[in-house]
Order: sequence, then C-alpha cells, then structure tokens
Amino acid sequence: MKLLLAEIRHNKLLWLLVFVPVLFASHKIKPEAHTLHFVLSVLAIVPLAALLSHATESVAAKTGDTVGGLLNATLGNLTELLIALTALRAGQYMLVKASIAGAIVTNSLFMLGASFLLGGLKHRIQEYNRGSARMQAGMLFLAAVALLVPSAVSEADSVANAAFTQKLSVGLAVVLIITYVLGLLFSLKTHPELFKSVEVGGAEEGHGHGQPLPMGIALATLAGVTLLVAGVSHVFVESVQVAAESFGMTPAFVGFIVVALVGGAAEMASAFSGARKNRLDLSVGIALGSSSQIALFVAPVLLLLSYVLGPAPMNLQFWPGAVVMILLATLTACLVTNSGRSTWFIGVLVLMMYLIFAMTLFLMPPQVQ
Amino acid sequence: MKLLLAEIRHNKLLWLLVFVPVLFASHKIKPEAHTLHFVLSVLAIVPLAALLSHATESVAAKTGDTVGGLLNATLGNLTELLIALTALRAGQYMLVKASIAGAIVTNSLFMLGASFLLGGLKHRIQEYNRGSARMQAGMLFLAAVALLVPSAVSEADSVANAAFTQKLSVGLAVVLIITYVLGLLFSLKTHPELFKSVEVGGAEEGHGHGQPLPMGIALATLAGVTLLVAGVSHVFVESVQVAAESFGMTPAFVGFIVVALVGGAAEMASAFSGARKNRLDLSVGIALGSSSQIALFVAPVLLLLSYVLGPAPMNLQFWPGAVVMILLATLTACLVTNSGRSTWFIGVLVLMMYLIFAMTLFLMPPQVQ
Amino acid sequence: MKLLLAEIRHNKLLWLLVFVPVLFASHKIKPEAHTLHFVLSVLAIVPLAALLSHATESVAAKTGDTVGGLLNATLGNLTELLIALTALRAGQYMLVKASIAGAIVTNSLFMLGASFLLGGLKHRIQEYNRGSARMQAGMLFLAAVALLVPSAVSEADSVANAAFTQKLSVGLAVVLIITYVLGLLFSLKTHPELFKSVEVGGAEEGHGHGQPLPMGIALATLAGVTLLVAGVSHVFVESVQVAAESFGMTPAFVGFIVVALVGGAAEMASAFSGARKNRLDLSVGIALGSSSQIALFVAPVLLLLSYVLGPAPMNLQFWPGAVVMILLATLTACLVTNSGRSTWFIGVLVLMMYLIFAMTLFLMPPQVQ
Repeated sequence: MKLLLAEIRHNKLLWLLVFVPVLFASHKIKPEAHTLHFVLSVLAIVPLAALLSHATESVAAKTGDTVGGLLNATLGNLTELLIALTALRAGQYMLVKASIAGAIVTNSLFMLGASFLLGGLKHRIQEYNRGSARMQAGMLFLAAVALLVPSAVSEADSVANAAFTQKLSVGLAVVLIITYVLGLLFSLKTHPELFKSVEVGGAEEGHGHGQPLPMGIALATLAGVTLLVAGVSHVFVESVQVAAESFGMTPAFVGFIVVALVGGAAEMASAFSGARKNRLDLSVGIALGSSSQIALFVAPVLLLLSYVLGPAPMNLQFWPGAVVMILLATLTACLVTNSGRSTWFIGVLVLMMYLIFAMTLFLMPPQVQ
Repeated sequence: MKLLLAEIRHNKLLWLLVFVPVLFASHKIKPEAHTLHFVLSVLAIVPLAALLSHATESVAAKTGDTVGGLLNATLGNLTELLIALTALRAGQYMLVKASIAGAIVTNSLFMLGASFLLGGLKHRIQEYNRGSARMQAGMLFLAAVALLVPSAVSEADSVANAAFTQKLSVGLAVVLIITYVLGLLFSLKTHPELFKSVEVGGAEEGHGHGQPLPMGIALATLAGVTLLVAGVSHVFVESVQVAAESFGMTPAFVGFIVVALVGGAAEMASAFSGARKNRLDLSVGIALGSSSQIALFVAPVLLLLSYVLGPAPMNLQFWPGAVVMILLATLTACLVTNSGRSTWFIGVLVLMMYLIFAMTLFLMPPQVQ
Repeated sequence: MKLLLAEIRHNKLLWLLVFVPVLFASHKIKPEAHTLHFVLSVLAIVPLAALLSHATESVAAKTGDTVGGLLNATLGNLTELLIALTALRAGQYMLVKASIAGAIVTNSLFMLGASFLLGGLKHRIQEYNRGSARMQAGMLFLAAVALLVPSAVSEADSVANAAFTQKLSVGLAVVLIITYVLGLLFSLKTHPELFKSVEVGGAEEGHGHGQPLPMGIALATLAGVTLLVAGVSHVFVESVQVAAESFGMTPAFVGFIVVALVGGAAEMASAFSGARKNRLDLSVGIALGSSSQIALFVAPVLLLLSYVLGPAPMNLQFWPGAVVMILLATLTACLVTNSGRSTWFIGVLVLMMYLIFAMTLFLMPPQVQ
C-alpha cells in the first residue's frame, strides 16, 4: 500500500484517482446527470488505466520474459476490453464496433503520428527497428482484410445473408485469434532476436512509473483496479451517448474518437515519452502492437463472448466508412513504417489523416452511419 | 517411351496417370455419375499437368534460353488454359472468370504463403532476389487495376453500358497482352541479369523430374498430353458443378479454389520443393510468374478467343468480391515481397488471408455472387 | 524585350506564341467556331505555359532559395490554376473537378511513367533520391485520402448530407493547405538537405530555356502572360465541350486527359528532358511535386475561391471513378518510387495504367460519369 502511495506521489496522473469515488458518489446521488458522469468517468478511467498497465507490467516483470510477454499481450488493452465488454452486455453493438474500429485507427494513426511528431521536434531524424514494425503492420493488414470481407461481400440484406455473415464472423474470429497466437509464438519463442529493443504492448522503462510493484500487491491491484474500471465503464457507457449529444458530438465520433482516446490514454503517455527520449522503437511497438492486439485479439474475443454475455450474437460486419478508415489507417502504417526512419513531417502527415477521419465523423449527420 | 516410363517410375505423382483411362471408361459407362467423375478427373489432371510441365521444359531446355523462356512463358499455365477453354466453349463464363480470378489469388497467396511457411519451418530466415519479385508484383498490380476498372466504372446496367464494358474489355485485353510481351522482352532480352537465379514459370532443377526428354518424345508428349488434358477437362467442367453441390460447396468456391488448386498442382509441387531446398527465388518466381501469366496472358487470350470459340463474346467485368480479392492479394504480394526476406510467420500471414477468402467463398449463399 | 526575343529564338516551342493573336482575332470574327478555337487555344496555351514557368523561375532565381522555392511552389501550376479558375467562374464545376483529378493522375502516371521510359531507353538503370520522392508520394497519398472520404462516407443524397459534404469540404481544404505549408517548411527550412538535387516544381537547368530573365522583365512577363493565359483559358473553356463532342470525345475524357495534358505541357517538357539527361531526380521531383501541389494547394484554393468567385460554393465530392483513379495513381506512385531505381519497363507499367484510365474515360458512355 505504501508502494502504491509512493507510485501515486511519483506519477502526477494518479492524482486523478480521486475522481473514482467522486464519480460513484455522484452516480448514486444524481443518476440522471449524464454529462457530469461522462466527464467524471473520463477523468477516472485515465489513472485507473495507468495503474492497470503498471500492475500488469509488474506481474510480467516477475514472471520472466515469455510469460510476461504473454501477460502484456493479453492484458495490455484490458481497459479497452472492459469498456467494450460493458457496452456488449448492454447490447450496444454499434458502440462496441465503433470502439474497436476507433481503437485500431487511433492507435495506428494518432498514437503513431504524434510519436513521430513529438520525437521529430526534438530529434532531427529518428531510426527504429523496421523488422518488428513490419510484422505488426502485416498482422494489422491481415486483420483489416478480415474486417473488410464481410462488408465487401454481403450487399443484399436477406435472411440467408445474415446467417452467412454470422457464420463468417465466427470463422474470421477464429482465424484472427490463431494468427495472434502464432504471432506471439514467433515474437516470443522462435524469432525473438528480430524484436530486440521493442516490447509488444508497452515497455516498463518508458512508463516512468518508478519501480515494479511486489507480486502480491501487483496481483491485488490488478484485481481491484479491474473491478473499479468495470464499474467506471458501466457509468461511462451509460452516460456517453446522452453526454455526446449535449456536447454536439455524433455517436460515431464518440465511439471512434472519444472512447479510443480515453481507453488508450495510458499507452499514449508511454509512447510519447519514449519518442521524446529518442526510443522510437518503443513508441512504434506500443502503437502498432496495441492496434494489432485490438484487431486480432480483443475484437474476436468480444465476438465470441457475445454468444455468452450479449443479448444476441454480434457479427464482424462494420459500417463501410469504418472499414475504409481501418484499411487506409493500416495501409498508411504499412507504408510509413517501411523505411524505419522518421521526421516530424511524417508525423504531421499521419496526424492529418487522423484529423480528416475525426472531422468527418464529427460533421457526419447521424443517419448516414 | 522407355524414358517416359523411367520418368513415371521416378516420379511417384505419375502413378496417378492410371486414373486417366479409368475416368474415360467410367464416363462412357455411367455418364451421369458426376461426383465420381469429378473425383476421378481431379486425380487424372494432376499427373497430366506434371507431365505437361516436364515436356514443356524439355523442349525449352533444347531450344536455348530465349525461345525456352518464351515457351515456358506461353505454355507454363497450359493446364489452366485448357480447363478454362473447355468452360469457355461450354459458355460457362462464370466458371471461366472464377477460375481466372481464383488462379491469380491462389498463386499469389496460397502458393507464395505455403512456400514461405514450408521454407521457413526448415530455414530460419530466407532471402530471395527482390528485384524480379518486384517486377512480377508490379505486373500483377497493373493487371489487378485493369480488372478493377470495368467494375468500378460501370454501375448502371443499361444497354449503352454493356456495349461500353465489351469495348473496354477488348481494349484492356490488348493492353495486358502488350505489357506481357514487353515484360518478356525486358526479362529475356534487355535486362536478363536482374532475374538471375529465377526462371519464370518454373525451373527444371526444382522439379526433381530427372532428365529432360529428347526433343521428339517431348514434342509428342506435349501434343498427346494436351489432348488428354483437353478430354479430362471436358469431363471435369461437365461434372464440377453437380459434384460441388453434392459436396455442399458453392459454385464460387469451386471455381475460385478447387479449379485453381487442381490446375496449379504441378507448379505448387515445384514451388514447395524449391522452398524446402532454400531456393526461395525459384518459389517466388513460380508463384508470382504464374499469377502474372494468368492475369496478363491467359485472361486476355481467353477473352479474345471467346469471340471465335464461345457462344457470345465474354467481357472482363468480374463480380465485385472477386475484384476486391484480386486487388488485396496483389497488394499483399507487393508488400510482402518488398523486403526480399521471409520467415515462417510471413507465410502464416499470407496463408491466413487465403483462408479468409476461401472461407468466405465456402460460406457465401449462392445468390450473393 | 530583346532577351524575350532571344528566348523565343532559343526555344522552338515559343514559336507557337503566334497562335495567341490568331486565336483572339478568330474568336472576335467567328465566335461560334468552337472546334477551331479549341485547337488554337491548345496551341496557344502551350508556349504561354512555358513562358510563365520561365518567368517564375527567373524571379525565383533572383530572390534566393527560400522565397524562390515558395514562388515555384505557389506559381508552379499557374496555368492549371488559371484554366480551372475560368471554369470555376463559369460555374462548370464538373470541369473544374475533372481537371483537378486529371492533373493529379496525369502528373503522377503519365509524366512519371514517360520520364522513366524515356530515361530508361537511354540509360540502363537510373537512380534517384527516394527520400524526397517518398515525402511527395506521402503528401499525395494524404490528399487522395482527403478526396476519397467525402465520397466514401456520403451515400444518401439527402439535404442534411449536402450540408455535411459542404462543411467537410471546407475542413478538408484547410487541412490540405496547412499540410502543404508545413511541407514547404519541412523541405525549405528544417530538412532541406533531404531534398538535395531535387527542386520542387521544376529546376531551371532542366528547362533548357537559356539564361534567367532580369527581374523587371521577368515580373512584367509574369503579369502580361498571366493575363494572356487567362484570356486564352476563357476561349478554351468555352469551346472545349463542343469541340470534344465534334471529335467524339466524352466530357470526362476532355477534363481528365486533354486539359491535364495541355496545362502540364511545359512541365512535361522539363521532366522528359531531365530524364534523358539522366537527371531523374529532377523528373520525379517535377512529376510528384506538381501532383501534390495540385492536390494540396490548387484544389483547396479553388474550393475556397468558389465562395467568392463562383455562382455557388463548390465541394470536394468527386465522381467515384475519379476517386478510384486518384487513389490507384497515388498508390502506384508510392510503390514505384519506393525503391529509388528505375528501368524502362517500370515506365511501361506506369504508362499502361494511365492508358487504361484514358481508354476507360474515352469509351465511357456520358451518363455513367
């Protein structure tokens, strides 16, 4: 507990933890104050995500490279998974899908582009391990194709078609998970030397979180914070749509941009700090690793869980605009990381693409989506 | 004849030749046993294709590099051409188009990916000549664009549109054939040194077929086997749709996957054996060379022949899903061969994309296509 | 004046200037002779564009690297801008959009491909600075995405949708202009050494125009020729559609191909001459620099000017076929310039793609566009 408090003193972000009890209290007293709850839950999720990520890494640090890598790979996007799970249980499949698509696009454009820009403003030309970037980008491209196929193929909306999309989605989910597992085997077991100086899902040194927590405390933190995130996510998902309207935001913008930025805040802090320290390997690894983890692990797991937890099975058929954005974001990540070098202007180009997508979603009349 | 028999003893695959007379006998006796004929014709085509390819190379080996290269380039996909021609004469344009699209996708994803995987399981990291891979991938990309344009442009189904698509298809066919001929000029005449250690369409050493046949026997084999393949193709095309239904396969799956795998079996054997021997240049050359040959030579030749042999002129307007698959397969081949290096996991990624396409076609309700 | 006359004597192209007065006289006497005026205005624009580009460079040469670079970057496509402005004032938004899309596609396929082919026929293998090619290609890709989004997102044609497209277009225009300005900052100020031996928008030595003009004459030429181009553009825009019909060309073909070739003739002369002299850096710089200037500067400026000069605000929603062509042309430019090496066959591949697009537009029935 002392260590946790020391951690809180060390990391300014963790002061935001005070908003967790404030949120729960406010939700008890005024359940209909959706805009307030939205703001409070955003403020509460960010430090919890940081804590969750610190606890995961602490456990990973104690359990050795392979188990640790596996832990990071499965729990690295726990916040996104918990938010999406809450939306799934509430049957808000539009929000689940928007948050999946948004997390992929946000991580591979905003996180990558801002890392390039922030690093490039301080360092003239930055180099990074393009081998690992290529593998992650390749996995992302495969996932983008998997998500594209159901929309590209099924145009008519007949009953036969719905059954086909459902079966196809399950098949795609299995393919993606198998590919993800084989990717872990490749990067952790058979060819780890190709990934030197990159740790998938976030590296400890880059976080600036101070020392790892002892095993017991780390596990307890992991369990406790997971429960808290689940609770906060519940309020967040409940309030997000109403709050969005009162801020003049479209549901698509909220799902794609706001949820993705909130869910990924902790990883972004790590990626940006790595870029400033000229450790671009770390930043690119977090950005692309996180994207591919969402696409190849979180998304298919959510689909399979929808059979158990959701009111009805979910499918992987996305709104065509989202598919186009995922495909373009992925292709951009492939082309941009191909050279293994970066300057601030590359960052600008990637960020501008994100800005174009965000602007489109912000302005879009709701019925189009 | 002795040499042919020695060849048969040497190459286990050729024992399957026994199914050729069995097929013809069975077709005489029980013309309506479609499922049986389908299985028999698949078993009969595979050894014939291997023999055809061996005879072509034997002739090529005797006639010098340039003429030999030309022979390989025109007769390398003779089996696919003969099957498609049979379907063309029967007016089954859906099957012709599906087999063209399927051969492009199967060669550039399945053959390439399985070569990477099989080679990578034995050799840690494999390198190959990326110069020639790039040229083939570039030609493939051009062909993919050519096949995309008619579908992208013509949405309405008016009469003016049908005439436009027809004229455009002929123009595209001419552009593709000219590009193919210029590509041969480039690789055989003006810049052959860029293609060192790669032989377009298959290299003799990789086949493990033993010695080349003498000229006379080779030519006689070429003529005789071509007739046999034509005969078997006739039964195959006749039985494939009925058999497909009885196996629960959709027509799209049969055209795309089954025909492509059967027609390309001989080349796949060569490509895979090359990859196992760490001669990945050979495998990549066969996979991409075969793809671009189908796209830039076989497809336009079939279109032009449809004016002479078919019941009505064919066009190059493909089902949109097929166009998307060709474009994605081609883009993948471009991105993947860009580095000139390969590991088993690259093979997995490419194979998974093929699996996604195959699964989609297998599950797809027939009316969507 | 003497210098101008010397220039005219030096550069054969400038003899065509005689068609300027001929055109104006003929337009006075026979205002309805559209086909004649079309031919005359094409013949008159080409030398004026060459003169304009020479005057711009002369001013640029006197004002130092940075201001000169800025001048080239803003006035380098003045001819295209003037033609499009005339069409804009006439409310011919279809022609404005077709000429924007056509200039992007023509510069990044025809100008680039023909440079590769012409250079490659003389020089076995040519190398160029791929760093700067990558930056230009990256900017182009961003612009292609920006132009793709409005078409990809807005399918229904409701009133809400029109307002959305309008707002989105203004936002995209601002994003593109900011990116363009930041790109100039990058290439002229912070990282000029990455662009060694490439001058965006055309380099003087490559033009073969003889000496730069003195400042006063250059400015006077700039002003006078701008007025003449504006006058000729007026006749050109007025006559182009009627003339096109009488030549059997579709409006799409005229806007995409004819206007783009006429407007870019002067730059093409520079690019091709650079390629023949084995200065491919120059050619690639002109081709891609000109494309990205049109996409990131001319197109958004025209959109913003439509609020002031046009009968109604223009938007950036293009005909889907044009978007596909821009995206494919841009992707091709990215893939092709990735290696920094070129041979004649690469030029053939790129030119064939242009030929496919031109053929499609030529054959397309007008109602499809």
